[in-house]
Amino acid sequence: MTAHFVNDPAALVPEALDGLIGGAGPGRLARLDGYPDIKVVLRADWDRADQGRDRVAVVSGGGAGHEPAHAGFVGPGLLTAAVSGEVFASPSVDAVLAALLAVTGEAGCLLVVKNYTGDRLNFGLAAERARAAGLRVEMVVVGDDIAIPDTPAPRGLAGTLLVHKVAGALAQSGAPLDHVAGAARRVAAGVRSLGISTSGADIPGRRSEQRFVDGSAELGLGIHGEPGVETFALGRDAEIVDRMAAALTDALPDGGDSGAAGGDVVLLLNTLGGLAPLEALVVVCDLLATPLGQRARLLIGPAALMTSMSMRGFSVSALAVDDELARALLANCAAWTAWPGARELGSHDRLRVLPVPTLREAGKVLASEDTAVRAVLTAVTGALIEAEQALNALDAKVGDGDTGSTFAAAARRVLSELDALPLADRSALFARLSELLGSAMGGSSGVLLSILFAAAGSAGSAGSVGSAGSAGSVGSAGSAGSVGSAGSVGSAGDDAPLADALAAGADAVQRHGGAGEGDRTMLDALLPAVRALRDGGAAAAAAAARSGADATGSMEQARAGRAAYVGGQHLRGVVDPGAEAVAIAFTAAATHR
Amino acid sequence: MTAHFVNDPAALVPEALDGLIGGAGPGRLARLDGYPDIKVVLRADWDRADQGRDRVAVVSGGGAGHEPAHAGFVGPGLLTAAVSGEVFASPSVDAVLAALLAVTGEAGCLLVVKNYTGDRLNFGLAAERARAAGLRVEMVVVGDDIAIPDTPAPRGLAGTLLVHKVAGALAQSGAPLDHVAGAARRVAAGVRSLGISTSGADIPGRRSEQRFVDGSAELGLGIHGEPGVETFALGRDAEIVDRMAAALTDALPDGGDSGAAGGDVVLLLNTLGGLAPLEALVVVCDLLATPLGQRARLLIGPAALMTSMSMRGFSVSALAVDDELARALLANCAAWTAWPGARELGSHDRLRVLPVPTLREAGKVLASEDTAVRAVLTAVTGALIEAEQALNALDAKVGDGDTGSTFAAAARRVLSELDALPLADRSALFARLSELLGSAMGGSSGVLLSILFAAAGSAGSAGSVGSAGSAGSVGSAGSAGSVGSAGSVGSAGDDAPLADALAAGADAVQRHGGAGEGDRTMLDALLPAVRALRDGGAAAAAAAARSGADATGSMEQARAGRAAYVGGQHLRGVVDPGAEAVAIAFTAAATHR
Repeated sequence: MTAHFVNDPAALVPEALDGLIGGAGPGRLARLDGYPDIKVVLRADWDRADQGRDRVAVVSGGGAGHEPAHAGFVGPGLLTAAVSGEVFASPSVDAVLAALLAVTGEAGCLLVVKNYTGDRLNFGLAAERARAAGLRVEMVVVGDDIAIPDTPAPRGLAGTLLVHKVAGALAQSGAPLDHVAGAARRVAAGVRSLGISTSGADIPGRRSEQRFVDGSAELGLGIHGEPGVETFALGRDAEIVDRMAAALTDALPDGGDSGAAGGDVVLLLNTLGGLAPLEALVVVCDLLATPLGQRARLLIGPAALMTSMSMRGFSVSALAVDDELARALLANCAAWTAWPGARELGSHDRLRVLPVPTLREAGKVLASEDTAVRAVLTAVTGALIEAEQALNALDAKVGDGDTGSTFAAAARRVLSELDALPLADRSALFARLSELLGSAMGGSSGVLLSILFAAAGSAGSAGSVGSAGSAGSVGSAGSAGSVGSAGSVGSAGDDAPLADALAAGADAVQRHGGAGEGDRTMLDALLPAVRALRDGGAAAAAAAARSGADATGSMEQARAGRAAYVGGQHLRGVVDPGAEAVAIAFTAAATHR
Repeated sequence: MTAHFVNDPAALVPEALDGLIGGAGPGRLARLDGYPDIKVVLRADWDRADQGRDRVAVVSGGGAGHEPAHAGFVGPGLLTAAVSGEVFASPSVDAVLAALLAVTGEAGCLLVVKNYTGDRLNFGLAAERARAAGLRVEMVVVGDDIAIPDTPAPRGLAGTLLVHKVAGALAQSGAPLDHVAGAARRVAAGVRSLGISTSGADIPGRRSEQRFVDGSAELGLGIHGEPGVETFALGRDAEIVDRMAAALTDALPDGGDSGAAGGDVVLLLNTLGGLAPLEALVVVCDLLATPLGQRARLLIGPAALMTSMSMRGFSVSALAVDDELARALLANCAAWTAWPGARELGSHDRLRVLPVPTLREAGKVLASEDTAVRAVLTAVTGALIEAEQALNALDAKVGDGDTGSTFAAAARRVLSELDALPLADRSALFARLSELLGSAMGGSSGVLLSILFAAAGSAGSAGSVGSAGSAGSVGSAGSAGSVGSAGSVGSAGDDAPLADALAAGADAVQRHGGAGEGDRTMLDALLPAVRALRDGGAAAAAAAARSGADATGSMEQARAGRAAYVGGQHLRGVVDPGAEAVAIAFTAAATHR
């Protein structure tokens, strides 16, 4: 049996309604003191002279399991009260009558009922009793389902919500009962709905619905687990949605072309409780592309409004709208209700030019010459290419054996671009190296080296300072322990010396990569080298990198990179290939100065 | 493989984003023209002088499959742009950089990233590149998951949305980058989240997650189908929620007691895409009852905000709030986004007295005498009791054989109350009979007879008139063909003759029951009898009822009641038991006049 987040199934509905009432906050919702038999949620402000009683009350309800319908729609501009039964079971006559007696004032009450025999009879008898008690009660029954052709009693589906919204908006505006009821009947007469699902409705405490075969869907099913009128293997969403839209169009009175609307329709996309929001958006995309969608003036949803527990499906409701209905559907209602609002559609420019020129500018380079820099780059890249096999062999012991090839590939790429590089402009050079390494090197090591040079290149721009201190601080406002505070770098401006630039780069690598010194990564060679470089120059940096790399051989716990999955006994005595590559690079740079 | 509402899985995300953009309506959302590689949704109004550029941009994103996160939160007061990858896959560096370049103005940009290696590296490199291009970019990484103890890299979950909201509200208010980033870091530093689910995340085009056993749940799982840290058979929801709330409280910095908030917290209840809304409300009920819930100043949700396709689970996020954070969380943002709004909690009177006295009043009776009426009631009830076995035998041929007992039980109840009935006040008498029949008779026949007398009793009250013409008209504004227009009855006032009263009652039976003359029900005797009564009196009514009942024997198609499931060959020659009962009643009434 499917697991459900419930306590005692018998207390399921009262607890859910209490969650709704408590979660709504003070002064919004209340309930009649009649649990467990009478489950009526009503507006807490309805007795206020400026809010209720003198206005028409709008009451609806039905079985539970369709949340947020109906109690989730109780609020100013929508329902005055909602009567809930147990899961998929009609509320009792007494419960409905209690709701009517509790909220109906001189202005009367509109009772909105979905067309199921139990609801019709219980709500109907309650209405007759309320009238016998002298209340003015109008009742409208909604049967918007088009799944079963020529049925004398079409089911009430999500289209009922459009009746609620229109009636609620008019009632809130102070319209008299006959006007509210008349508009509600217009909506009930005009709205059509069709549903589809790829799963049944699992009810807490009952066996799961095993009717559905993987990959299959049912079209035209109800909201109580009733089987659909057609079962098939689900194909492309666009085809299904086209079929549903066409069926709805055919079922609309006069094809929806009646009235001042001139064919305008409102579409309501209701999800049944378990449909992934990602899929619901695909349905919107396909729905708006249909002829019916092209006629849509208003869209409501996608949203879970009239659900069937956690069914993985949706229903589409369509209604021809004129200006009065559109106004009522667009009217404000209590923002804390489950009403998602209606959105006016229309063609608009949805594309923005990709900032490609700016992207290029970000990496724009003007070649320039600096023989010393050229010598260093030539030496470093040469050394890394020469070390390819050795580094691969080293990596083979603790990883997947490609560190040498990864660095060599990057080195070859840099060599091939040497004449096009802005050798005389360190910031531009580092920015360009960042791009080359990012594209030429695979895996996270490529991204990390790309980050290193990008940060080194931009060291000194105000933007990078604040963020340098913070970006990496997961769940903490500080950035303690970052190498050579980038803040001091930034303040030093673009002429920051090489060491400070590399320090900013190493800092960024730590921030974004999440590793630090001692974690058995390239940082164990890089960080000491950068520190030494500032005070002792290239030779000291090379020596520091070398000893730092060698030290990784005695680190038996890797905290980052693929080696993190390797046991200490395998790591013992093996130098980290990344750190070794860094040592090779600094050594080459120093000896060829 | 589970069926999904998609087209080409490769086009899934672009189609979903187009659905979001198209469904939002003109002037709200746009996208960068970079499909399929670059999937960036941004505010369509961002280039307007009064809207964007001069304000801090807030950009976030990550893999798809978490909708409405992140593109669903793009709008004034929330995100300026969202970058989407493929399902559960980080967007590319170029995509993030394109977003940054597209929306970042002089005021700079805050980049909000969930703490996953891919996101950290790609968003991080994009940020460094953007800085290298001269943009002011701050980045905050959110790792709010507490599932895995002592992990150096906690995952980013729904708590990220609180960072979005606070940063978005401050940015919209015109706050400078350092202020926006500082507040975002406070939220990131303080928010904690924990998730639970009873199902995995089904991804379109991939095999379903079969990890979950029916009835089991996983606590502390991620939003990409990562297994939870603990699997167990799901017990009472209150116990699970208590555990989660306690764990969150322990994980809050200083237990959430820090700051001016004095222990106030905001709770965010995020559903993972497939949780039944009914269950989500139970979780709210249980959550608000925990010690943490008692401290909640603000509640956000339940709502599907950071989903994992259609996982049947939820996550709870907690954050200590002071007034500044509360203001930012309560601040208005674009109503058409997926943001559900925050609600201020507090104790309030949630109960309304059940209108029991009024209920009684509805059925209040003062006994009164009318010998003629007493004679008729005695005769009718006597005849029905006498006919019990005969009617049962008749019903046995076409139904479940209890029609006689049903009517006899009602008759006995009426007889037993005879001395207490308001025999001299027809309206009161009918209202009381409605109650007696409704409680003494089982099934829909009891409700329908109760409706008959309730409507007959209230015939003449304005309330019942308008509705009489409409309540039953499913999906149609008219009420053509109803017996003896109730309108004419109502206008006649409370002294309407018996025939008109019964006509109103019969009309109500048709409306609420949905059956009409010729459908092989009691109406086939009742309607002719009521018509005859007005012109010809009791004798004519009895004759009409008799012939009407007899005529049902030749009706081979029942359109209502249990007989509707019986084949014509079984119905041939058998009189409908309900119609027969009506004929017996009218005959008794006439002969004993």
